[in-house]
Amino acid sequence: MDNLIDHIHSPEDLKQFSDSELNELCAEIRSEIIHAVSQNGGHLASNLGVVELTVALHRVFDSTDDKIIWDVGHQAYTHKILTGRKDRILTIRKQGGISGFPSRAESSYDPFNTGHSSTSISAALGIANAKMLRGEPGHTVAVIGDGALSGGLAYEGLNNAGHFRKNFIVILNDNKMSISRNVGSMARYLAHIRTKPGYFRVKGNVENALDHVPLIGRPIHHVLSKSKSALKQALYDNTIFEDMGFYYYGPFDGHDLNKLMQILENVKNIDHPVLIHILTRKGKGYFFAEQNPGMFHGVSSFDVQTGKSACSGENFSSVFGGHLCSLASADGRICAITAAMQSGTGLSGFAKQFPERFFDTGIAEEHAVTFAGGLAAGGMLPVFAVYSTFLQRSYDQIIHDAAIQRVKVTLAVDRAGVVGEDGETHQGIFDVAFLNTIPHITVYSPSYYDELYYNFNEALYRCRGVAAVRYPRGKQLFRPCDFESSYQAFDVYGDQHAGNVIVTYGRLFSFACKALAKLMKNGIACRIVKLNRIKPIDPGAVQDAFTGENIFFFEEGVEQGGVGEHFNYLLNKNHYRGNFVLRGITDFVPHATMAQILESLGLDDAGMMELITTEIAK
Amino acid sequence: MDNLIDHIHSPEDLKQFSDSELNELCAEIRSEIIHAVSQNGGHLASNLGVVELTVALHRVFDSTDDKIIWDVGHQAYTHKILTGRKDRILTIRKQGGISGFPSRAESSYDPFNTGHSSTSISAALGIANAKMLRGEPGHTVAVIGDGALSGGLAYEGLNNAGHFRKNFIVILNDNKMSISRNVGSMARYLAHIRTKPGYFRVKGNVENALDHVPLIGRPIHHVLSKSKSALKQALYDNTIFEDMGFYYYGPFDGHDLNKLMQILENVKNIDHPVLIHILTRKGKGYFFAEQNPGMFHGVSSFDVQTGKSACSGENFSSVFGGHLCSLASADGRICAITAAMQSGTGLSGFAKQFPERFFDTGIAEEHAVTFAGGLAAGGMLPVFAVYSTFLQRSYDQIIHDAAIQRVKVTLAVDRAGVVGEDGETHQGIFDVAFLNTIPHITVYSPSYYDELYYNFNEALYRCRGVAAVRYPRGKQLFRPCDFESSYQAFDVYGDQHAGNVIVTYGRLFSFACKALAKLMKNGIACRIVKLNRIKPIDPGAVQDAFTGENIFFFEEGVEQGGVGEHFNYLLNKNHYRGNFVLRGITDFVPHATMAQILESLGLDDAGMMELITTEIAK
Repeated sequence: MDNLIDHIHSPEDLKQFSDSELNELCAEIRSEIIHAVSQNGGHLASNLGVVELTVALHRVFDSTDDKIIWDVGHQAYTHKILTGRKDRILTIRKQGGISGFPSRAESSYDPFNTGHSSTSISAALGIANAKMLRGEPGHTVAVIGDGALSGGLAYEGLNNAGHFRKNFIVILNDNKMSISRNVGSMARYLAHIRTKPGYFRVKGNVENALDHVPLIGRPIHHVLSKSKSALKQALYDNTIFEDMGFYYYGPFDGHDLNKLMQILENVKNIDHPVLIHILTRKGKGYFFAEQNPGMFHGVSSFDVQTGKSACSGENFSSVFGGHLCSLASADGRICAITAAMQSGTGLSGFAKQFPERFFDTGIAEEHAVTFAGGLAAGGMLPVFAVYSTFLQRSYDQIIHDAAIQRVKVTLAVDRAGVVGEDGETHQGIFDVAFLNTIPHITVYSPSYYDELYYNFNEALYRCRGVAAVRYPRGKQLFRPCDFESSYQAFDVYGDQHAGNVIVTYGRLFSFACKALAKLMKNGIACRIVKLNRIKPIDPGAVQDAFTGENIFFFEEGVEQGGVGEHFNYLLNKNHYRGNFVLRGITDFVPHATMAQILESLGLDDAGMMELITTEIAK
Repeated sequence: MDNLIDHIHSPEDLKQFSDSELNELCAEIRSEIIHAVSQNGGHLASNLGVVELTVALHRVFDSTDDKIIWDVGHQAYTHKILTGRKDRILTIRKQGGISGFPSRAESSYDPFNTGHSSTSISAALGIANAKMLRGEPGHTVAVIGDGALSGGLAYEGLNNAGHFRKNFIVILNDNKMSISRNVGSMARYLAHIRTKPGYFRVKGNVENALDHVPLIGRPIHHVLSKSKSALKQALYDNTIFEDMGFYYYGPFDGHDLNKLMQILENVKNIDHPVLIHILTRKGKGYFFAEQNPGMFHGVSSFDVQTGKSACSGENFSSVFGGHLCSLASADGRICAITAAMQSGTGLSGFAKQFPERFFDTGIAEEHAVTFAGGLAAGGMLPVFAVYSTFLQRSYDQIIHDAAIQRVKVTLAVDRAGVVGEDGETHQGIFDVAFLNTIPHITVYSPSYYDELYYNFNEALYRCRGVAAVRYPRGKQLFRPCDFESSYQAFDVYGDQHAGNVIVTYGRLFSFACKALAKLMKNGIACRIVKLNRIKPIDPGAVQDAFTGENIFFFEEGVEQGGVGEHFNYLLNKNHYRGNFVLRGITDFVPHATMAQILESLGLDDAGMMELITTEIAK
């Protein structure tokens, strides 16, 4: 078996191949990616869309001096295969394996970690300026999707890059999609460009044409004589990208490898910012992914022959989505907002049922919150459903456009806590701590679906101002059959008179229950104070914990600024003199399964057991 | 004395005036604003630029149903005068007086609080959608400056507003400035539109012209026959705003009141998003402000005849700027970045001395941090100087594009702590708490200029990864003559054996020293543990405080998630059993002088004294 792909250990090795071999190589890479993702899960459709582009980039550019920044980074599998990581591609997203995103720590071919959208132009511009200031050779290329272009940060990047005086290349990878179908005016504008390729190609001819325009009789005479240069301007500087200072080339077929290489060669030595607009097909080369690129954006393992993966069924997102629909049927004020995560946040049903009250803002979390503030000021009940990690982008807007306004904005914070395989850029470990800092906000952290119902109703109808309900990725976990939720601010479970008290919230309650059962078996009496509302904390919860001589607080989020430290302070205000032990997260968290991560952080039942046993023995 | 302005108690009252009287009224309003700002300080130049626009808006629209959102809000003085707040205009920015920005709590004519830039389109779109969904009458107008248009949030707003199906009006108030001269491609693009007003006006004629284009001989024949509709497109859909789905009208003279009213009347009933581009002069009507709009953007009180205000002299910003220049002379890697705050952050000298290493990103704090991450990844030493309140916008980028990258980005956090008269949208009370949540970040909080030097050097050269130095607005405060800074992570001042320990950082140290002197006089022994590095906290500082039986922690920032709670936790980890009392900030903080605010929060010397005396007496 002599596959071309096996001959590639660094991008240099691409030089040995003929054009037709390179096309063959692309096919091999596609198979490799489909195989790897079908086994491990991961991002599929986006990766299949950029195989030719990646091969062309690495063939034309020299990645030791030249830097390629992959926006979002979920399309970098081919890049990883070509840059010495082919042998580890089956370890992708696995504990100890390579990351699903570019990572500086992993490879010198990855100049900048990506994960959140729309950063590539800004980061690349920084790198390009550094090169210029240091007199270093090499090009800088940002590859950004049309979806990522809906984020304001990308616009800020374009706005700042437009007057750079050196070669600077942005490749717009236009597949008409974010994760779902792309939205917004920019998307519509790109569609407009796509339908008129002839128009942008004709430009080369137009220059000569206009130089010979006869000044013909009225009324055209009037127009042209007054604005001949303006007309030229209109024909030349026409795309938004040209208005923003870029030279624009495109649109081109992003699967035509030879053409791509030729264009990249051509623009390499232009001392000016250049935007190359290519059209690609998300999921290209794998039937099921082409048919349903949204579903195959990020997948768990699946069967290559049938495209079927294990049915995922009910989870926190779907439960939230279903509940919101039933509330919205009865209350015409409820609006749902997503930042390009309709399906992921469980809002597809809502979008279908209440299209006029459903808003997909594109990848624009800042706008989403400010827009929600406006809706609320206008008398609606907006609910912004968003992954915890992306809500980080709205921190200022939550303060400035929601909390300070004293309006009723509700945040449905999905993927709160560790998210697993997506790794350190995506862990939802900050939301509790940053929401904690904001006055007047109420935060709930349900452990189970039924609690999500109640907490959400409370957030929506009983809280004033901003309220958040946060819930983890995936399904609800173990629930002891003798635990009944009170649906109040906190619950107590276990031995009412025990001297050992576990305090926790959200998903960790399941692990705490398991730990408690084992501890009881070992003769160690224990009870759990489970916080349902984590901001503000109910004084009763503090009072209950207070009676324990040992209090163990477990937190699936950053320790500093989290609920644990605040709980400790509240205990202290009551002059607690017992033993308070806190375990939270103190560093960024790399990729692995959720279970592996919680284990490594000592936040699963075994970790809790061990800490408690050790402390008690002291 | 019969001034027109005295007849105005609500916008309704404008209806009684003739066109020439309205122009007279504008002159009166200008005098009123100049008078008020010369007494109280405040935003001058931006307010003088929109007098005619504001009068036109309130004459044409009906502010009970129609909603006007003033982006940033520092140009809303005329709006306040016309909406029943003329009698209180001299109380503006004063404790208990009206706010310098629109405020929902203050007036029903203020539909949305503004303060931070670039929010107006998003908020207005929310309000407009709410109106549509509720079937309520009325128009929604966002007024946004060309400076604010450099912020990504404004772009996200445009991107989402472009397909709104009802009347939605954005007024682009183009004065060629942010606070300083506006930068970026969009600014250059607007300049391009401004120089070609004839071009955009000619459009009305062009339609007919093109309908009659004779298909003349080659080469023009070729072009036009192939792309007649494309050419029309180019002539019609030409501005970026049209590309984004808006109807574009302009540019118009923003000081021609009658013209403005006519245009507003015309666009009122267009069921489509409309952008009206008007040109205004910042500082219009006051000689000194027209000459130097940057200086007169925000001013303290000044002499109307001479334009002179009390010389402000040295302050933390200027000391920082000077120090950065001297470091940059010796180290070619140092770059300075500002988000449109060159002068405010003390970087004007740097910009002049090192233009190639100075970057003004426009009002784009997100980009600024990601760009800094790129510069750092490329081997430079970027320093982003930014007001604390605006750094809130970069929370995700600090995590994702700096801390996770493990690159060396330095943050110079100006206006940290309460800022005074600008009020609740601008208080720098969150930076400590949100930086606290991020792993691997080091944070310094100097009390004096010399400490700023040392802390900054340490941040730049001795810390790995992201480091921040935060310092307050204005000048350094009282310093006891027997206090010498060690320039280490913490200092101890006062009675080494006292049972009462004050722990604090930054500017509050001055107040603590005064409190200590008074306490000593009253026979209460006390010492101060002054934290210079507030993250991570030096274990020695905890150990020193530990010996006190009463520890009083004072924090000029939000209490929850702040350093105080964390210090408490560290004490607890060491099994501290004494009395820990924390006083920080627990709510948004309205406008007043810095001294008044600290007094009201109990964070000045008197407040500290009182708390300590009361606690000790318990």
